[in-house]
Amino acid sequence: MDNPFGQHFLGIEGLSPHHIESLLDRADNYALLNRSRKTPRTLLRERTLITLFFENSTRTRTSFELAGKRLGADVINMSVSTSSVSKGETLLDTAYTLNAMRADLLVIRHAHSGAPALLAQKVDASVINAGDGMHEHPTQALLDALTIRRHYGKLSGLTIAICGDILHSRVARSNILLLKTMGCHVRVIGPPTLLPLTIAKMGATPYYSMDEGIKDVDVIMMLRMQKERMQAGLVPSSREYFRFFGLDRRRLNLAKPGALVMHPGPLNRGVEIDSNVADDPVQSVIQEQVEMGVAVRMAVLEKFSQIKAQP
Amino acid sequence: MDNPFGQHFLGIEGLSPHHIESLLDRADNYALLNRSRKTPRTLLRERTLITLFFENSTRTRTSFELAGKRLGADVINMSVSTSSVSKGETLLDTAYTLNAMRADLLVIRHAHSGAPALLAQKVDASVINAGDGMHEHPTQALLDALTIRRHYGKLSGLTIAICGDILHSRVARSNILLLKTMGCHVRVIGPPTLLPLTIAKMGATPYYSMDEGIKDVDVIMMLRMQKERMQAGLVPSSREYFRFFGLDRRRLNLAKPGALVMHPGPLNRGVEIDSNVADDPVQSVIQEQVEMGVAVRMAVLEKFSQIKAQP
Amino acid sequence: MDNPFGQHFLGIEGLSPHHIESLLDRADNYALLNRSRKTPRTLLRERTLITLFFENSTRTRTSFELAGKRLGADVINMSVSTSSVSKGETLLDTAYTLNAMRADLLVIRHAHSGAPALLAQKVDASVINAGDGMHEHPTQALLDALTIRRHYGKLSGLTIAICGDILHSRVARSNILLLKTMGCHVRVIGPPTLLPLTIAKMGATPYYSMDEGIKDVDVIMMLRMQKERMQAGLVPSSREYFRFFGLDRRRLNLAKPGALVMHPGPLNRGVEIDSNVADDPVQSVIQEQVEMGVAVRMAVLEKFSQIKAQP
Repeated sequence: MDNPFGQHFLGIEGLSPHHIESLLDRADNYALLNRSRKTPRTLLRERTLITLFFENSTRTRTSFELAGKRLGADVINMSVSTSSVSKGETLLDTAYTLNAMRADLLVIRHAHSGAPALLAQKVDASVINAGDGMHEHPTQALLDALTIRRHYGKLSGLTIAICGDILHSRVARSNILLLKTMGCHVRVIGPPTLLPLTIAKMGATPYYSMDEGIKDVDVIMMLRMQKERMQAGLVPSSREYFRFFGLDRRRLNLAKPGALVMHPGPLNRGVEIDSNVADDPVQSVIQEQVEMGVAVRMAVLEKFSQIKAQP
Repeated sequence: MDNPFGQHFLGIEGLSPHHIESLLDRADNYALLNRSRKTPRTLLRERTLITLFFENSTRTRTSFELAGKRLGADVINMSVSTSSVSKGETLLDTAYTLNAMRADLLVIRHAHSGAPALLAQKVDASVINAGDGMHEHPTQALLDALTIRRHYGKLSGLTIAICGDILHSRVARSNILLLKTMGCHVRVIGPPTLLPLTIAKMGATPYYSMDEGIKDVDVIMMLRMQKERMQAGLVPSSREYFRFFGLDRRRLNLAKPGALVMHPGPLNRGVEIDSNVADDPVQSVIQEQVEMGVAVRMAVLEKFSQIKAQP
Repeated sequence: MDNPFGQHFLGIEGLSPHHIESLLDRADNYALLNRSRKTPRTLLRERTLITLFFENSTRTRTSFELAGKRLGADVINMSVSTSSVSKGETLLDTAYTLNAMRADLLVIRHAHSGAPALLAQKVDASVINAGDGMHEHPTQALLDALTIRRHYGKLSGLTIAICGDILHSRVARSNILLLKTMGCHVRVIGPPTLLPLTIAKMGATPYYSMDEGIKDVDVIMMLRMQKERMQAGLVPSSREYFRFFGLDRRRLNLAKPGALVMHPGPLNRGVEIDSNVADDPVQSVIQEQVEMGVAVRMAVLEKFSQIKAQP
């Protein structure tokens, strides 16, 4: 089987348009199978998937757990409170241990950019990045792309605005990489303090005004305001943030008619997004994103079903 | 298949005697299958059951988890510490997310009365109430009824005393509803501050003296003293509580010879019940209640095996 | 099937050399099956294994969970924070509850020596000791023995040094029992305050100098320094401890050429063992210990597959 990731899946970086389309095709198929409750339980039979989350994320962890179970894997959850594990060597020791237990798939989330890549050098198991620091969150970008493609039938040529704390967001980074690869026009909107200098290099156009940045776009991706990642003294108040960069009905109307509203969750209602918009029955596709999350993760896990078991 | 609950199972209220008897019959059957380790693993195959507990309850959660697994479901546990989830909308957002992942069954416990009913209006998945605030805990009432029926061969005509903090007890409320529906005589015993005014409407007779209330009953259901639910300043001391409303051997002897002793667990030994009584090999059926808990939950889950999967 | 444990597996004490060899043979077989991902999923089908850990141990719990799943059991994890459960009766009440749910196997870890033995007297389920206080950790001793046997082809006649906090170590105790039973020469090395007086009775030779104790041994078993178990005022500093009883390259060279380096994990790098030694590609077998941990636990669980289900 053609596996675009090699032995690990660490990021969107390096995937070709063909790889991405083919993953989305498979995920589309899994979305159907999930709806009809007819998932291929033998695909990962006898394989062990361990979720190793050094940051909490019920949503992503559950999504991977479901994806693994629906493909027949043994799924083990290891939730590691950051406090009980010291950094550096201990992360590796934990990984060595799971590897020695003959884990086949390690799904890892970690506060440090590059932690999954570090593990991947050290273990025989396949490492899947479920979000690392400010680096990448590749399955999120895939599920976002799948959701968009289901509505527009394609990705190429669409104009997509990503709004909020771009600086600290691995979601933004993976999305920019993927959307640029697929030929989208990408805008990033946020206060200057939250727009990284590297954006131009990534091919996204920066906007400091929400009203301008949102004009005529096909898709609006809101980001969660991650106060915990901001420097003290630079944290805007919720009211202030919403006034400048929150999405409400008036602003949504500046986008193309029928433009999609997306959010990776969990929502800060009233902070970065108004409930009236988040719950719009036509334009908001936030729940569809969640559904596609399971399907995309199944498509990713599937790629590892043919990897030779470590000896 | 006849499903008395419709799409959800939110409470005992509204169940007919026929529905209840039929559920207990099925649960009796599952109790046998559990003992012989021959449970029907295909019944919920490809179905996803998610336990969503906003209050801790190892006992009830484990019981549902076992029931689901013994019927072949994929079971996912989401334990939500109340602190990390804000109220109201976020509960709904969590439910929307699980729903979008194509959960079939959401087993929910929540500190707010009516939370499961609220979810049920919003999701396609079937919602099962595993205890909500001071409202209902319907599977507890079913397992209590099954335990009683196994000893007396029937429910109708029995006299049952429920003792303790009736005011804050969803266990008491569901039990009164079920037992009255089945034609039992129900007494509630407790201090006036812990007996709600609505009891007369529910058809239960209030007693403020344990010695009087327990006289000649067939069954004594002790409740757990829930200090955390009482208003500060109104919390009795354990010693004081036991003296007035604790169950010891002398009091047990006031009931009918052989009267059953029940408790939903976990026990506060020496607070509401004396160990000598809790561990009585003949009259205490506390462990049998636990066993019937798994069986009853299988009978409830079974009812949802025929619900058409959400599209 | 010959079951050396009877209904429970509480410790190494009482096992014959024949029993131990036969368990290690079976575990060797499971190590092969784990590597080829061909484990016998029907062996514990319809059996319920509950892990009940009153002390945290991700490593041991995960190992048992994997072992159970790879034999087809339903595995339920109950992690009990010591704080939320009071001692004594409540431990028993928890066990009674799990027993009533028709658990077949209770894998228990508890801070009190003898807790598993206490449970074993009270429940119908089979109790497996996953570490109790300063008493025993029998599956650890078995996995250590298997690791050694795979390298030397036998146990009898080997000289093995166990180094560190022998006084508080159930790992040391189970290992001494097993290794003496198998005809090994066992040395224990540590500061006088951490060597218990009962060592002579167990047949191990005490050494107060690391350099002397390690001379010419075939195997060096390092223990984790368990500060939390030591009396305040008697806790050595890490630097001091390492200087006197840490394993580094110079000391390792005092042992026989090619001597094995072992550690039950998790490692305190730089405290009791130098990274240079812990990661030695030839002499360190720390990861193989972890791998054998799953295999040994499968061999132990297997023994209970023929136990008649409790009625």
